[in-house]
Amino acid sequence: MSAVDYQVDGKTYEGWLVKPEGKTNAPVVVIAHAWGGLTDNEKQKAAIVAKEFGYAAFAIDVYGKGKRGETVEQCQALMNPLVGDRAELQKRLAGGLAAAKAQDGVDGSKAAAIGFCFGGLCVLDMARANQDVLGVASFHGLFRPAENIPQPKIKAKVLIEHGWLDPMATPEDFLAISKEFAGADWQAHVHGHSYHSFTTVGANNAEMGTMYNADADRRSFAYLKTFLAELFG
Amino acid sequence: MSAVDYQVDGKTYEGWLVKPEGKTNAPVVVIAHAWGGLTDNEKQKAAIVAKEFGYAAFAIDVYGKGKRGETVEQCQALMNPLVGDRAELQKRLAGGLAAAKAQDGVDGSKAAAIGFCFGGLCVLDMARANQDVLGVASFHGLFRPAENIPQPKIKAKVLIEHGWLDPMATPEDFLAISKEFAGADWQAHVHGHSYHSFTTVGANNAEMGTMYNADADRRSFAYLKTFLAELFG
Repeated sequence: MSAVDYQVDGKTYEGWLVKPEGKTNAPVVVIAHAWGGLTDNEKQKAAIVAKEFGYAAFAIDVYGKGKRGETVEQCQALMNPLVGDRAELQKRLAGGLAAAKAQDGVDGSKAAAIGFCFGGLCVLDMARANQDVLGVASFHGLFRPAENIPQPKIKAKVLIEHGWLDPMATPEDFLAISKEFAGADWQAHVHGHSYHSFTTVGANNAEMGTMYNADADRRSFAYLKTFLAELFG
Repeated sequence: MSAVDYQVDGKTYEGWLVKPEGKTNAPVVVIAHAWGGLTDNEKQKAAIVAKEFGYAAFAIDVYGKGKRGETVEQCQALMNPLVGDRAELQKRLAGGLAAAKAQDGVDGSKAAAIGFCFGGLCVLDMARANQDVLGVASFHGLFRPAENIPQPKIKAKVLIEHGWLDPMATPEDFLAISKEFAGADWQAHVHGHSYHSFTTVGANNAEMGTMYNADADRRSFAYLKTFLAELFG
């Protein structure tokens, strides 16, 4: 595993690559980060993808090298401009995807993307923008539509792993995305008892509604394995 | 595999037992039938449970030996009285569960239940009534609450495999059951493109909204395997 610098539009971004042992030409899973930027959480998910599922994992960075948030204010300051400018976000996502596919020992023809919280919105945008991925899986992602793609015609397979009690993606938001994605091959795996951040080990902020949930974490990743196997078949 | 007669309240019912080869003391999965009664469809699911998952499968019968429906009118005439009298339905379900647990070579301490269409309502009622199952999985089931258990306190784990386009269980119904089951450990796996009967091989009635869907069939059973493995440890 190693940090990997890459360029998009002349700016430097820092990703994180983990390859499965003893495999060459492995399919690659892009990992899109939560609002704090690429941190240990995304690295933990990359390790699962490589070690337990046997695919290459490339955690991308849509903020820029060295730009990471810790406080709520810092994270919002990094995330909000991109949530509000989806064309710019999608450009950075495309750059990250291209970097993932360009890594040595990776089969760039077989790519998927998974993302967490803000990263869920990111991978749903990769699907909305028809970036070259076989499928995307959002974990406790934000559903807010992309203002630059009002009627997406989605080709990628879509999996939405969703906590039903997530205050940032309500049942009303769920109904809305079910309509937006009606033309896509979409599935949702809904976890009744779960809040936002259910896969984020250590999340424990009842006031914000961000809570790790071991059951939903385990169950969502079990189904992710099935989903990726279908994509990469 | 064999037909098995059993008694509930002095009346004879005819179930269907399939045991996994080379295993003794296997956990048992009760299978609740769709509105036509125990037919080839349930026998096909029993074969999957035994041969692919390695558990004993016991398809129960809540209509009575020889009582099976073929036409829409016949099926409705068999089903509707039980949908309207849930105490009676639950009694027959409990009898079927007891028969399943009593079969030779079965570990009666490890039981789960799965059901299809009307059978989905049946297994959700087994959960509502706190019958002795570790978990239940409903496939394109009906969500109508049980009039005799207005506020269920559910102990079993619940999985709802659901077609989002199912005209017999609408998004509004989905929201309603998410509230009814809020206290339970429930999950739902929603299939965006699927109608009612998505696991019923050969279903193809666009007017009624009953359509087999190979993707949703395969995906829902893949997750059922994970769910049962969690229940039976």
